Amino acid sequence: MSSDRPQPTIPVLKNLTIENITENVHRINSQCADPRLKYVMERLVSHLHDFARETRLGFDEWMAGIQFLTQVGQICTDVRQEFILLSDIVGLSLLVDSISHPKPPASTEGTVLGPFHTHDASTLPAGSHISADPHGTPLLVLCTVKTTTGQPVEGAKIDVWETDSHGKYDVQYEDRGDKADGRAVVTSDKEGVFWFKAIVPVPYPIPHDGPVGKLLEKLGRHCWRPSHMHFMFEKEGFDNLVTALYVRGSDYETSDAVFGVKDSLIVPLDTVDAQTAKQYDVEAGTQVLRYDFVLTTDDETKQLRHDEAVKAMKSLGREGMIVINGLPVPDVD
Amino acid sequence: MSSDRPQPTIPVLKNLTIENITENVHRINSQCADPRLKYVMERLVSHLHDFARETRLGFDEWMAGIQFLTQVGQICTDVRQEFILLSDIVGLSLLVDSISHPKPPASTEGTVLGPFHTHDASTLPAGSHISADPHGTPLLVLCTVKTTTGQPVEGAKIDVWETDSHGKYDVQYEDRGDKADGRAVVTSDKEGVFWFKAIVPVPYPIPHDGPVGKLLEKLGRHCWRPSHMHFMFEKEGFDNLVTALYVRGSDYETSDAVFGVKDSLIVPLDTVDAQTAKQYDVEAGTQVLRYDFVLTTDDETKQLRHDEAVKAMKSLGREGMIVINGLPVPDVD
Repeated sequence: MSSDRPQPTIPVLKNLTIENITENVHRINSQCADPRLKYVMERLVSHLHDFARETRLGFDEWMAGIQFLTQVGQICTDVRQEFILLSDIVGLSLLVDSISHPKPPASTEGTVLGPFHTHDASTLPAGSHISADPHGTPLLVLCTVKTTTGQPVEGAKIDVWETDSHGKYDVQYEDRGDKADGRAVVTSDKEGVFWFKAIVPVPYPIPHDGPVGKLLEKLGRHCWRPSHMHFMFEKEGFDNLVTALYVRGSDYETSDAVFGVKDSLIVPLDTVDAQTAKQYDVEAGTQVLRYDFVLTTDDETKQLRHDEAVKAMKSLGREGMIVINGLPVPDVD
Repeated sequence: MSSDRPQPTIPVLKNLTIENITENVHRINSQCADPRLKYVMERLVSHLHDFARETRLGFDEWMAGIQFLTQVGQICTDVRQEFILLSDIVGLSLLVDSISHPKPPASTEGTVLGPFHTHDASTLPAGSHISADPHGTPLLVLCTVKTTTGQPVEGAKIDVWETDSHGKYDVQYEDRGDKADGRAVVTSDKEGVFWFKAIVPVPYPIPHDGPVGKLLEKLGRHCWRPSHMHFMFEKEGFDNLVTALYVRGSDYETSDAVFGVKDSLIVPLDTVDAQTAKQYDVEAGTQVLRYDFVLTTDDETKQLRHDEAVKAMKSLGREGMIVINGLPVPDVD
């Protein structure tokens, strides 16, 4: 053996077959020093191989997959993430969000972040209008944010963002520059109240001029999302809440291209009465979106994430696992 | 509902949870008109979701995965295919090859094609030297190619390729231009014999300066392949055979980075006796690689691929599947 090349430390494989290759890949990957990565790779390789065996994946199909993934990677830029879009349209993003941010029954559910959040929205005082679009239908947004025990959360930083009346976010216009529109950061007051003026959300298509759009077409699926407004809550001591409210009765309410809709987040629009119109300085009959958000504390979330992971390992019958920071790892002691 | 937008044709999902999202994605994908694509997507989505649930995949891990795949896509060029490399190092390429080209016991096994085959090698007469490398150890290659019933296969087109003595293929040199070296196309004679002169293969590392190399490092794995020579057989009426011969006793024989080694393809080198040296015009004591290849017919392969697919569906307990061209599809009639 030559001495200037690394020497294998583990006896492995020869005579690989359709049946034994998975075990052999596990054996060679078992050299990994990071137990979490080792477990993730073990599950990934097992599922990838089972997928190929169960479909009898053909060479041409494998090559089509290689070329598809290459195209997905090559269309990505600083402002376009086609792999996240791919994750979205197969429900993986929603699933990962649900696992990472488990919610007790009393709290507001999360949903997909999507690619259109920015960090340059202005912090606006209560009652501001977040949209400069003159063609949108006026909307009053009246909300509160509380703890799971009903206490108001004061001083939560709330990012809100929505499209204009054409179904486009400000960042989808080439001439946007640094002029944010249709988005703002607002703050809850000591009663946990926050409110602002906006426009009624409209449905819009996800970017579909790339490989993911072509896949949707082959699957016979449309590329639309139902009308919604995004909300993201940050407050020290609380788990960040990334969510959205969906307008009841919107097109695509039951076929969101990215699987973001949850029953508890669908809200009927109402119209304001005369007194409310006067109080909030809007025209009588203006549409209004009301919602009471409930945040979970960091501690509640951590505990729940831990318990859910332990439960998942148990129901999978995985022996010898421990849970660290909510993530299962093999118990190496 | 607006009339200028597509209308969903299928009632689906709301209130998505960790448990029901998979079924919901299947429902929306069931609109796909291509039954094979529908089945492949169903298995892919099931395994992807199970992977996330079994690992409790964290948001940061998901994002690391998104970024990794993006890097893999972005390093690909006309002459570098990092996704194939990724497929190779997790054993998927070998698995897909084994499924697509099943071999009856009497025939030569296939193995991974690898990224270094080209279409510009010269067709050389028997006895030619395929390598211009003056530093390589001379090697005589004496082979035959026959049918599973022992009949010689005349006129098979055989692509052979190997690295130089530094472990590099000609295409890995920037100044290669169109001057192929270490590769040739040879032809079997009426006894099924083909022979040529070459150099003794050496181990070499797969390209490891990209994201796949970094992954191997994190997994505690080396990036080396054991000494081998590639062979690809084409002959009308026979299944193309993509294979390689591995030199017995080579470094990495039991830890090939891309899982290409099979027992039946490991060959001990011998040295020629005086008579053989004279017959083939090489120095006495030259090393020799002897191998008798056995091709399967197209018909044998098709039948075997069909039978294996039927058997796989049965052992999986998949009901209502039929096999077309070796690929399982749902029986829609």
